Amino acid sequence: MSNTLESIAKLAGVSRGTVSRVINRQPGVKQSVREKVMAVIAEAGYVPNPQARSLAGGKTENIGVVVFGNNPLFLSHHLFFEVLQGIQSHSTLNAYDLVLFSNRSERDKEYWKRIGDKRKVDGLIIMGEDIREEYLQYYYDRDIPFVLVGKRLIEKFPVHCVTSDYRMGAYEGTKHMLDQGLQRIVILRGLLNTFHENERFSGFAQALEEAGLDPDNALVLNGQADKQTAYGETSRLLHSGETFDGVFAGNDLMAFGVIEALRDFGLRVPDNVAVVGYDDIQAAPYFTPPLTSVRQDKLRLGQEAAQLLMKLLNNELDKSVPVDVMIDSTLIIRQSSLKTGLL
Amino acid sequence: MSNTLESIAKLAGVSRGTVSRVINRQPGVKQSVREKVMAVIAEAGYVPNPQARSLAGGKTENIGVVVFGNNPLFLSHHLFFEVLQGIQSHSTLNAYDLVLFSNRSERDKEYWKRIGDKRKVDGLIIMGEDIREEYLQYYYDRDIPFVLVGKRLIEKFPVHCVTSDYRMGAYEGTKHMLDQGLQRIVILRGLLNTFHENERFSGFAQALEEAGLDPDNALVLNGQADKQTAYGETSRLLHSGETFDGVFAGNDLMAFGVIEALRDFGLRVPDNVAVVGYDDIQAAPYFTPPLTSVRQDKLRLGQEAAQLLMKLLNNELDKSVPVDVMIDSTLIIRQSSLKTGLL
Repeated sequence: MSNTLESIAKLAGVSRGTVSRVINRQPGVKQSVREKVMAVIAEAGYVPNPQARSLAGGKTENIGVVVFGNNPLFLSHHLFFEVLQGIQSHSTLNAYDLVLFSNRSERDKEYWKRIGDKRKVDGLIIMGEDIREEYLQYYYDRDIPFVLVGKRLIEKFPVHCVTSDYRMGAYEGTKHMLDQGLQRIVILRGLLNTFHENERFSGFAQALEEAGLDPDNALVLNGQADKQTAYGETSRLLHSGETFDGVFAGNDLMAFGVIEALRDFGLRVPDNVAVVGYDDIQAAPYFTPPLTSVRQDKLRLGQEAAQLLMKLLNNELDKSVPVDVMIDSTLIIRQSSLKTGLL
Repeated sequence: MSNTLESIAKLAGVSRGTVSRVINRQPGVKQSVREKVMAVIAEAGYVPNPQARSLAGGKTENIGVVVFGNNPLFLSHHLFFEVLQGIQSHSTLNAYDLVLFSNRSERDKEYWKRIGDKRKVDGLIIMGEDIREEYLQYYYDRDIPFVLVGKRLIEKFPVHCVTSDYRMGAYEGTKHMLDQGLQRIVILRGLLNTFHENERFSGFAQALEEAGLDPDNALVLNGQADKQTAYGETSRLLHSGETFDGVFAGNDLMAFGVIEALRDFGLRVPDNVAVVGYDDIQAAPYFTPPLTSVRQDKLRLGQEAAQLLMKLLNNELDKSVPVDVMIDSTLIIRQSSLKTGLL
């Protein structure tokens, strides 16, 4: 370090103290001198040892969070920001700062590569709806430890995942209705062919099967994870003459749409039809009637992802053995699913 | 750059290509060779020019977001994460990544200094309830451009701020009730002596004054920005025998507490008492009755903060002249504040 300072000082024609002040961005150096010193540093490729060590493959004291998805406002999605909160609170315990890599895929097709190339971080936590195998392969080949929030089945290389137990959540939400004697339960799915929707459907079907029932295709609705489509699909089903006494919706916004459609059709919730949602968003307890919902522990999802990454960074795990952490969900029972008199 | 590679290669006794592969973290280098090369790099303080330039004071292509506050789960606060979303969406347009500096003040008293010393970022956006002048002084002295979300009056050095127009928001929420003929309006404040509460009180008082009314001290309540205290304070006022026909609450959770206290006392909202909240949180439209609220444009708050910082980084502003950006708020009128028949 002192040799480095010495040679920069010599090249720039200033004292070692001045070089030190420039490097540490302290006041008391004329702008022209500062620029001279910086030019020499840039030219020579000299930097103080700690930084050099970090760039040569040591610790940056940063972990990266990447969200690969199509929603540019991903942070406003309650799932992401709460998971991010969990990552933040755990990584700060380990003295890491977070680098949030933004979604630039529209303007910058190879941005996902540069996330790996930039070496701003010691490891990555990867989230989102659009995680491609080639991205993960690229990071894996470059020896950048990463953990997925969500799940991907990949055989070529080990992938460490943290995911909510969607199957169990759907199972418990459905069983709660069946236990009250309901027989014809609608499932309203969100985005098709995603891991979590498939898992939820399995849990739903399992609860029916244990009650001696089969899923009725007429009662399987496909929404688009929004309130409006849920309202439309529910209205369509009501007008078709199908009868049903319960609805399990893939998220709370869809459950809100279901309840409004039932009400506009002249039915009462929960007296005529019980409704269970998923996620337990901030508005769920304030809805009329307050909504029963399956709550994911998003904070813990983030914390466990950060903890898994820390273990990888500290070489406490055999990297070649994929680890799969499953986080329990909790059914929060409120009025929307309780037959009158039970609450 | 090639000279640098050359000398590292010579010192490590490997080819230039091998050094390049190690620096770029490409596969195909034995672990022992990789470690040798890294040791040489760390020892010599050599790094490739782009990184050296960045560490010598050039661009890191990162901007930092710091939240100084007492809530370790600050990201779960809707204000912070939506502002963060605004910062993210604007900074990504400018090809910056975000570094989220976590709150370690409990364990690490001088962490705020190291945020400035670490040189992980080109500039800072600073938020939170606990921003101290010495922090800002420290960053200012080290020539780290920064922008505040929120406002501080500091005379010693220029501070660039982006803030919501709380005064105008409170003015419009209050005027909306006065325009319907209400005469005795309660103001329920959140945390005392904060800039935004003082501004809100000014807007409230201004609306009363324009209507020829004076604020009545008996109708000025102090909450703690939570629902429970709001419920308690409202109940206390109701039992004291004071009469009032409107309530302006400093946030929506307090407004929820007010409405529940009124209902438990046997009063109807809005028929007997109109209620207006602040923030327009996700639950506001789903409350019974749906809550009228002043909505801050949090996304724009973040975007404007990022834009101001970009201008500082690009030397498009005279740094010695403080800039103060004020963002309009919007009154969202729902049932809780409308006398029956008006909606």
